Amino acid sequence: MASHSGSLAAKRVCSAGTRILCRRNARLVRPYSITTNSNKGKKERVVILGSGWAGYAFANALDPAKYERIVVSPRSYFVFTPLLASTAVGTLEFRAVLEPVRRLPGINFYQGWADDIDFARKTVRAEANTADDLASKTIVLPAGGGSYPKAPGIKGETFDVEYDKLVIACGSYSQTFGVEGVREHAHFLRDIGDARRIRLRVLSLFEQCAHRNRDHTTNTPDADDRAAGCLTDEDRRSLLHFAIVGGGPTGIEFAAELHDLIYEDLARIYPDLLQFVSITVYDIAPKVLPMFDQALAKYATDHFTRLGIKVRTKTSLSRIDLAPRDLGAEHGGLRLTLKDADSTPVPAGLVVWSTGLMANPLINRLASKSFPLPSTDTSKASLTLDPKTNLLLTDEHLRPLLATPPFPSSPPATLPDVFIIGDCATISSNPSLPKTAQVASQQAIYLAKQLNARTIGTGKPFRFRNWGTLTYLGGWKAIHQSSADELKGWVAWVVWRGAYLTRSMSWRNKIMVPFFWVMSWVFGRGISRF
Amino acid sequence: MASHSGSLAAKRVCSAGTRILCRRNARLVRPYSITTNSNKGKKERVVILGSGWAGYAFANALDPAKYERIVVSPRSYFVFTPLLASTAVGTLEFRAVLEPVRRLPGINFYQGWADDIDFARKTVRAEANTADDLASKTIVLPAGGGSYPKAPGIKGETFDVEYDKLVIACGSYSQTFGVEGVREHAHFLRDIGDARRIRLRVLSLFEQCAHRNRDHTTNTPDADDRAAGCLTDEDRRSLLHFAIVGGGPTGIEFAAELHDLIYEDLARIYPDLLQFVSITVYDIAPKVLPMFDQALAKYATDHFTRLGIKVRTKTSLSRIDLAPRDLGAEHGGLRLTLKDADSTPVPAGLVVWSTGLMANPLINRLASKSFPLPSTDTSKASLTLDPKTNLLLTDEHLRPLLATPPFPSSPPATLPDVFIIGDCATISSNPSLPKTAQVASQQAIYLAKQLNARTIGTGKPFRFRNWGTLTYLGGWKAIHQSSADELKGWVAWVVWRGAYLTRSMSWRNKIMVPFFWVMSWVFGRGISRF
Repeated sequence: MASHSGSLAAKRVCSAGTRILCRRNARLVRPYSITTNSNKGKKERVVILGSGWAGYAFANALDPAKYERIVVSPRSYFVFTPLLASTAVGTLEFRAVLEPVRRLPGINFYQGWADDIDFARKTVRAEANTADDLASKTIVLPAGGGSYPKAPGIKGETFDVEYDKLVIACGSYSQTFGVEGVREHAHFLRDIGDARRIRLRVLSLFEQCAHRNRDHTTNTPDADDRAAGCLTDEDRRSLLHFAIVGGGPTGIEFAAELHDLIYEDLARIYPDLLQFVSITVYDIAPKVLPMFDQALAKYATDHFTRLGIKVRTKTSLSRIDLAPRDLGAEHGGLRLTLKDADSTPVPAGLVVWSTGLMANPLINRLASKSFPLPSTDTSKASLTLDPKTNLLLTDEHLRPLLATPPFPSSPPATLPDVFIIGDCATISSNPSLPKTAQVASQQAIYLAKQLNARTIGTGKPFRFRNWGTLTYLGGWKAIHQSSADELKGWVAWVVWRGAYLTRSMSWRNKIMVPFFWVMSWVFGRGISRF
Repeated sequence: MASHSGSLAAKRVCSAGTRILCRRNARLVRPYSITTNSNKGKKERVVILGSGWAGYAFANALDPAKYERIVVSPRSYFVFTPLLASTAVGTLEFRAVLEPVRRLPGINFYQGWADDIDFARKTVRAEANTADDLASKTIVLPAGGGSYPKAPGIKGETFDVEYDKLVIACGSYSQTFGVEGVREHAHFLRDIGDARRIRLRVLSLFEQCAHRNRDHTTNTPDADDRAAGCLTDEDRRSLLHFAIVGGGPTGIEFAAELHDLIYEDLARIYPDLLQFVSITVYDIAPKVLPMFDQALAKYATDHFTRLGIKVRTKTSLSRIDLAPRDLGAEHGGLRLTLKDADSTPVPAGLVVWSTGLMANPLINRLASKSFPLPSTDTSKASLTLDPKTNLLLTDEHLRPLLATPPFPSSPPATLPDVFIIGDCATISSNPSLPKTAQVASQQAIYLAKQLNARTIGTGKPFRFRNWGTLTYLGGWKAIHQSSADELKGWVAWVVWRGAYLTRSMSWRNKIMVPFFWVMSWVFGRGISRF
């Protein structure tokens, strides 16, 4: 009955007589029939772990005519991370920065975490993730790290995926430096679920603080008011303090976008609350935006000062916990304890944490094991861990280096048919490459081209081309730095926006993003909470 | 500091030199300073309970120059309900069908439930709702009903709002007819949170069913596979059965939109799953779409049969519970038990419930109490409940009728300065008016006009003008019926789409909605899950 109606449906769609719909139906793909071993040998099967800047860009660039592509990733989409902060403040619609992996024609996708890899049997053991809410939220490992979080209430089916070639692009985890309370109370900004939670929290804080006291005549609550959880102006000042920990581009851009949301949109809706608002960026280093030179970093800091955003460098936190009752704890108020002994705890309504990255648990597992090589069944080998970054070392062709080569070799032996790109590897000959989206996507494109041309190992090694760094500073201003030039102010802002339209985005989002920019500029940002 | 930067920010925005931004800043409003009693007497304060079709349309149409407007509603936005089903299948972005109450210039909003009304002191007692997740989700009262649900973990502050005039537009609740398991396992489709949950569930069901078994070679799982929670084709058939209970426009339109999502979009991504898909609409009545005449209803049913959507009339459920282990319970599978004794339980992956409405608890509370009138401090009065609909009775000027008038009067006495519009009232002289968005918004506009012209009671009574009824049937077809004409097929579909662009929508959404229609038509519906 269903299939019957299916064919009818197809006819019906075509009879609607639109070329596009017909073309769409014409390129019907059969995702899981191609995973059977029946057509092994026809095409080499490339299994890609991860759907971030490295994994998604690689899957997108690898030629489907030459390879069968299987993506295994805990989330079903690629997130265009540079625009996450814009979605968190409602300038952009969440979906405008997402690219569903399933949209790649002919792709084969399994939603789950790679748990382990058997290099000898060329098999990945993965655990299915069927809880999207978990997938869309940054995962922070418990102190001691190690095991993967399970989806609450849902048993993650484990399954094996065989590969002919394997591309490890599973990225890295967020670093909390063991600061207590970060996992429980801080927000990260690495995935779409994070952005949504931040957005809800910011808008909800203003809504809560807008509530007057019981009789709507006084602003200072009486005992009954306090009992009923009403707010004093001091409470409002505490809840409307927004703390950003980490002065990298993510932290700085979120602070800037948050400022724009508050002073361009919320100012019109809650004008009486502006007096209570404050935004602070904390960084342990002596200056923010380390990747920019002194002049540009100073420009950013001065600009922030003009906007009223405080920047506290050389400051680090020792813990985050819920505010005591008298600071409006029932409204989710927080309290930050700073490292320097003499400082009193700082109240805040929201803490956004973007301090750095730590190695993916899979990488630790792979580095700690030794295994027989596919070719030989006797001699054992293991991978090389870079002691400094704690990441796997690769050669310039992005192949993992073997620590104990089974046979004396120079150049050092590499593991065949396996490649590591993005945040989870370091190129031994160029360990200083930053862990950025730019590097990851360039590695992805390089590797795909080499595989498509079947010149891997023999072709030219990977070289990073620095396209420069861009950071938005709020108030229609940005900074841009590259080997060639330096830009600041609104010119850089124009470059900042323009650059994002040319990046690895679908046509759908190339249209969506500027559309939302215009809509938000004319009608204001989205402020509906749901 | 914050306010300092605030003024700077304002300057900065204007210095951007754009007329629109400056105009936006020009009409800065001060929501809660106007709630103080200080400027009582300047303007009459109109308190509006609810932000649905009645409440929002009234607040929008009431002249701010003549009245101070305060909206008290558990949710911070108006939902354009006819397009909810489209958001649930990803055709439209969620925010495109929302109108934030705070966007109404000069409006004063408190997010909370009206708990009780003191007609003598002209005061509303409300409980703050600070949990948006609760607000954005249809609330179903426990069997026995009565009390309001509290936001989990958040103490709802109670507060009083005094009024000069009161408009009760708090709508009605969903009716479950006491069927067990509906509250726990079924989805409603009345608010944006419902639509989002349904969307996640549908996409997640397909993703789960796409998972093969452990070795990816067989389709029939072995014992280990079952232990690991893998699916048989029978499980897939169960999980991909979508059950819609209630054959009204909401249920029919959701079934139609779901069909389009599956056969126009998911068919390209999961072609091998189509064979397992089935959609069934259950209704207790002998025919669906009671508001349409026999011919159009039959047209709808025949069209559904062609699409492969089953329609089971004269069928009702006795309970919904989780499927037993062997039906893939760990994937959230459900089991429907039908009333007719001989039928075996029906498995399903999703149940959408839209059977009818029940009175709002506030209405019951108001109907059950007697109170002194503002004018007289001795004699008591109470409101009149319509025994048939269980709603409050009003006269043709939408004023509540007093059951026990303190003085003999004809026409029957009404409660001064109080008005009831939308789903929570019945006009005594015209009890047959349907409880639809159309009636609610016409009542809202009528009442606002009367108050703006200060002709309430003396002006002409409320008269309903039937604009006709429209329902989408899937596959680019719809039906339309009004006193004047009947339309069916794609012509009606064009009318269906066109009609929604002229309704009570902001310019923002008048642009958004058709934009998304085109984007979804060209690029397919949004399928990213988060």
